[in-house]
Amino acid sequence: MHRFSKKKEPWAFSSAGLEHLPYKQRVGGSNPSTPTMILALQSVCEAFLFVNMKSMINGYTELVGLMAYPIRHSHSPAMQNEAFRKAGINCIQLAFEVDNTNLKEAVQSIRALGMRGCNVSMPNKTIVGQYLEKLSPTAQLIGSVNTIVNDNGELTGYCTDGIGYMNSLKDEGIDIKGKKITVVGAGGAATAIQIQAALDGVAAISIFNVKDKFFAAGEETVRKINDNTSCKADIYDLSDYEALRREIADSCLVTNATGLGMKPYEDVTWLPDISYLRPELIVTDTVYVPPITKFLAMAQKVGCRTLNGHSMMLFQGAAAFKLWTGKDMDVEHMKQWLKDNG
Amino acid sequence: MHRFSKKKEPWAFSSAGLEHLPYKQRVGGSNPSTPTMILALQSVCEAFLFVNMKSMINGYTELVGLMAYPIRHSHSPAMQNEAFRKAGINCIQLAFEVDNTNLKEAVQSIRALGMRGCNVSMPNKTIVGQYLEKLSPTAQLIGSVNTIVNDNGELTGYCTDGIGYMNSLKDEGIDIKGKKITVVGAGGAATAIQIQAALDGVAAISIFNVKDKFFAAGEETVRKINDNTSCKADIYDLSDYEALRREIADSCLVTNATGLGMKPYEDVTWLPDISYLRPELIVTDTVYVPPITKFLAMAQKVGCRTLNGHSMMLFQGAAAFKLWTGKDMDVEHMKQWLKDNG
Repeated sequence: MHRFSKKKEPWAFSSAGLEHLPYKQRVGGSNPSTPTMILALQSVCEAFLFVNMKSMINGYTELVGLMAYPIRHSHSPAMQNEAFRKAGINCIQLAFEVDNTNLKEAVQSIRALGMRGCNVSMPNKTIVGQYLEKLSPTAQLIGSVNTIVNDNGELTGYCTDGIGYMNSLKDEGIDIKGKKITVVGAGGAATAIQIQAALDGVAAISIFNVKDKFFAAGEETVRKINDNTSCKADIYDLSDYEALRREIADSCLVTNATGLGMKPYEDVTWLPDISYLRPELIVTDTVYVPPITKFLAMAQKVGCRTLNGHSMMLFQGAAAFKLWTGKDMDVEHMKQWLKDNG
Repeated sequence: MHRFSKKKEPWAFSSAGLEHLPYKQRVGGSNPSTPTMILALQSVCEAFLFVNMKSMINGYTELVGLMAYPIRHSHSPAMQNEAFRKAGINCIQLAFEVDNTNLKEAVQSIRALGMRGCNVSMPNKTIVGQYLEKLSPTAQLIGSVNTIVNDNGELTGYCTDGIGYMNSLKDEGIDIKGKKITVVGAGGAATAIQIQAALDGVAAISIFNVKDKFFAAGEETVRKINDNTSCKADIYDLSDYEALRREIADSCLVTNATGLGMKPYEDVTWLPDISYLRPELIVTDTVYVPPITKFLAMAQKVGCRTLNGHSMMLFQGAAAFKLWTGKDMDVEHMKQWLKDNG
């Protein structure tokens, strides 16, 4: 039984308290009637109650999950909850410790409890697709799901990691369409960025990775991109410094999508030295703790414009927020909030 | 996979931020060590963060459910959430629309998501027991569960409805042990009150009900009480006014545990007239909307001491809170809060 419905439940409150009503009811419809008035009044009262009780969690509060392990340390619930609060949406995100052993039952919970949806993170992103009714074309191509939407018990998987990266660039006024980029890494975040960039019209992507277990995944990504998009992708061994120098020289942007630079590898980068960079190059990192990785510090020394992973994290969350609520996250507000609380 | 653990997770914050640590760690243990100090410091920091962020829901927030249908209107989540906030416990209650069709999967969610527990209400109270590993003796005798506790994936069902009623009397200084009471009704709330009263040492209970489908349930309750407790129970047809007058005259307390007096029966009571009452009689009602039912109004006219269902609602919640957290709900604070927000 699922009674999840954007139209019936008074979960969404605009400043006027009316936006969640179907358009016809908001404007009175073709036949303005007393029930319509009552609905509108009820909704204003509930909106007032909601605001007045300082976002009190009540019987109308809906739930969005975050299923991963480990996960308690994640900033995502606090961020999404502030975004829900700011948008006046009576919904919260909670983290649940879920790994591959209880993932199937946890996904079933989304249906059984009528949760609005869920975020999924490691180690479940590449596993969870099999338990869902549908996958977005992007999630299917990437082979990874980080966001689930529950539509009356029918679950659809999306991957907003790559969208988050592309939107974080867009937000900075950086346009990489029709251009060539270099992405180092072949894990989950790297794959999402590479495939989303290809889908969004990047002309060429050079992927670098060491010859570890992820190298085959990188080769698979190259095949997927070349088979399914008009982007031209190649993969190289990261120890091939000649290729690295040549591909970076050809690229407008280079990004680190490996864990190097992040704890416990704070003082490590795959970049041999700053001679590989030039001031016009845009340099980004998916890592955001620390905010300035060794890689970004080297780029700043050369005078490159740099961007860390904080913004990607925000924009993947904003894309998930939009999928769950149909509303835009107030990104400017959230940037300030993350600065104050992140 | 369940990592639910009172000892490891920093979910519980006292004002000192230390109470959730095992006793040995709080006092330094037999071998005060650096890890102990770090744990204590970490916990103080987390407590500070928790308070400072105005009870922000974060990755550490745990979940307690409320499964029933309809349920959105319920005051329970708001009440429990205020109690969690007041106690400094990083846990929230959310309502889920669950009926018999999705109850089994919803209960499985408690395990899969590692929820701390759940409240259960109509229409699930008498059904849910079969999906749990254990039942408390009281829940088994009453045949009804309103509270579930998750202990590392093992679910135990309790019934706090009767406890709530008995504690609401106790809170008013009313002691009915060793005395006779009359309870009108044979539904869920009535059964819980009757059996709990018998277990708690009430000497005799006279049950009245109309000859509807619940009369057999009343007869079953009488059998259970007489077989399992030292209380003497009898059931009478509510239209037998002679018996009603006689049994009330013998009782120290009479309570309405039917829906009469509640919407849409605001102006209705089963009591024929005030000649059945006397000023020394204590008169209680399980209904709390409206706060003064027709039944209570008649009793007040006679000069009886009266008590409505609000207090029973609070104390059944306090008993559930204690089962989930091991802590006493701040009942005095909650009384004021319910007055301001209820």
